[in-house]
Amino acid sequence: MPELRRDPIMGRWVIIATERAGRPNDFIRPTVRPPNGLCPFCPGQEDKTPREVYVQGRAPSMAPNGPGWKVRVVPNRFPALKIEGELDRKAEGIYDLMNGIGAHEVVIETPEHARQLEDLSDQDVTEVLFAFKARILDLRNDQRFRYILLFKNQGQQAGASMQHAHSQLIALPVTPRQVQDEIDGARRHYEHRERCIFCDLVAQERKDRARLIFENEEFVVFAPWAPRSPFETWIVPKRHESNFESEPKERLGLCAQALRSTLRRLSVGLSNPPFNFILHSNPLRDLPSQSYHWHIEVMPALTQVAGFEWGSGFHINPVPPEEAAEFMRKVVV
Amino acid sequence: MPELRRDPIMGRWVIIATERAGRPNDFIRPTVRPPNGLCPFCPGQEDKTPREVYVQGRAPSMAPNGPGWKVRVVPNRFPALKIEGELDRKAEGIYDLMNGIGAHEVVIETPEHARQLEDLSDQDVTEVLFAFKARILDLRNDQRFRYILLFKNQGQQAGASMQHAHSQLIALPVTPRQVQDEIDGARRHYEHRERCIFCDLVAQERKDRARLIFENEEFVVFAPWAPRSPFETWIVPKRHESNFESEPKERLGLCAQALRSTLRRLSVGLSNPPFNFILHSNPLRDLPSQSYHWHIEVMPALTQVAGFEWGSGFHINPVPPEEAAEFMRKVVV
Repeated sequence: MPELRRDPIMGRWVIIATERAGRPNDFIRPTVRPPNGLCPFCPGQEDKTPREVYVQGRAPSMAPNGPGWKVRVVPNRFPALKIEGELDRKAEGIYDLMNGIGAHEVVIETPEHARQLEDLSDQDVTEVLFAFKARILDLRNDQRFRYILLFKNQGQQAGASMQHAHSQLIALPVTPRQVQDEIDGARRHYEHRERCIFCDLVAQERKDRARLIFENEEFVVFAPWAPRSPFETWIVPKRHESNFESEPKERLGLCAQALRSTLRRLSVGLSNPPFNFILHSNPLRDLPSQSYHWHIEVMPALTQVAGFEWGSGFHINPVPPEEAAEFMRKVVV
Repeated sequence: MPELRRDPIMGRWVIIATERAGRPNDFIRPTVRPPNGLCPFCPGQEDKTPREVYVQGRAPSMAPNGPGWKVRVVPNRFPALKIEGELDRKAEGIYDLMNGIGAHEVVIETPEHARQLEDLSDQDVTEVLFAFKARILDLRNDQRFRYILLFKNQGQQAGASMQHAHSQLIALPVTPRQVQDEIDGARRHYEHRERCIFCDLVAQERKDRARLIFENEEFVVFAPWAPRSPFETWIVPKRHESNFESEPKERLGLCAQALRSTLRRLSVGLSNPPFNFILHSNPLRDLPSQSYHWHIEVMPALTQVAGFEWGSGFHINPVPPEEAAEFMRKVVV
């Protein structure tokens, strides 16, 4: 059973895999290697993954865990957390730990092996976002979970071990410290000004226009004021909403358009760079919030992120967001 | 002039280089390329760096900025921050910024190009630590600075652009958010228990021994309870002291022994892995603290750190610290 351990000073939780690695220095993450050179995320290979927990696009007459799908969600074959068991929170001396209970799922975004998320149609990307929503709505019924971290690693340098387009979610029995810091920061702004800080950012960025990249009726895409890395880009709904999973499908369609426009600009403008995106949404057990506002943060992996950066939390960014935004605006997609 | 910008939600400061890069996508950090294939950190090449601000080991009869030194500190040729100017704190709409005032220096740890820090003698490593202390004591006289981030990147994957053994320091007019979080976390523990949490950790780790790697009279080396990455290792003084620069040279000698033992174990046990270390010390303008305790955090860059990890602050570590410590203890150095 993996363990969730809390750093006693910083309060951050870390997942520690406790199953012994084969060799003492066998510390590299397991990489899914197709046993026969076939991609386990491709149609026809459905038996190479755990059984699907969500599927979209397959006709009702067709058998589950077979071809015919457009989006397919399966448990991760090498889950960071285990779904079965009790949390069993306890202390060990001055330290806190609990069993590594959680869900770790893979969202296979398309049956086509050679297409990336940004190559799909707006309609297809909408179905991917709808799959995110469906999984969050299902997993939040499990009272053990407090937060769902939904993210995408694209490209090896961004941490992807599989080439076939996919994103991942990890349902956690704790709210990550950095998520809580963001929520607390937004709450402090609200307490002072009785306004959501993200709504304020949307207003300022639409007025300034210097960091604006794209907007449609419902979403605004901009380079944030203090980006940690070159071409960091945020996708923020114009209308206040704390929970991603509360968005109706029409709005997800406009989010898909904004997301796809962002990823296309990165891909065309910067020659298909590796990137991550992370969905920031309200914790599962919190009430809908007036001060917090869901959004997506996209971070291309262009410069090398040294351990120094994440060890210190201190970032040096050689590209001003105004220049990054100007460049991104001009990309023809 | 570079800018320091504050993220309005998270409160983190980021250095933004505002000098225009040559091309819009010229976003990679400048790498020092020796113009003639000669290393600018080697003896005889002293004119290839800015003029030295500290030197150790050169006979008084010899000219400055020439050979004969054992440790040499120079301003970074491509500084992230500029030393001249006023901070000029201001707002831009809802955002905060100030001029990127600060010092960025390189500590050249040895004249010998082919030796790494861990290859030096305890005595030579002591002189490197003493150079850290001397530079901190000098820079803290500049009232504009609030924190000095002192770190080492070794190996290209850990962010080093130069092979010749060196570390760096960045003197900042702000205290980085993550540093402040650590100080605040330690203060909360102190308020509850009237004890320093690091002193508690030292006691618990020396008693448990499961995560202990090395100790001498004054320092203890252990794998922390909730490490973010495999083989993360902390070097903590046994005696309470908040400020690294307050340590007398005898204690720095024992710190050098602990640091060298740690780096030798990593190098021998894990085949010379890339790594970072970061000095954690009390901010310059704070009084000596009963609740905070300086230490060094060493992080090998063994697994790929995806943008996901630093974007979310959430880490999955496949090596339990107890196994890492057992492995490190057994390495013959």
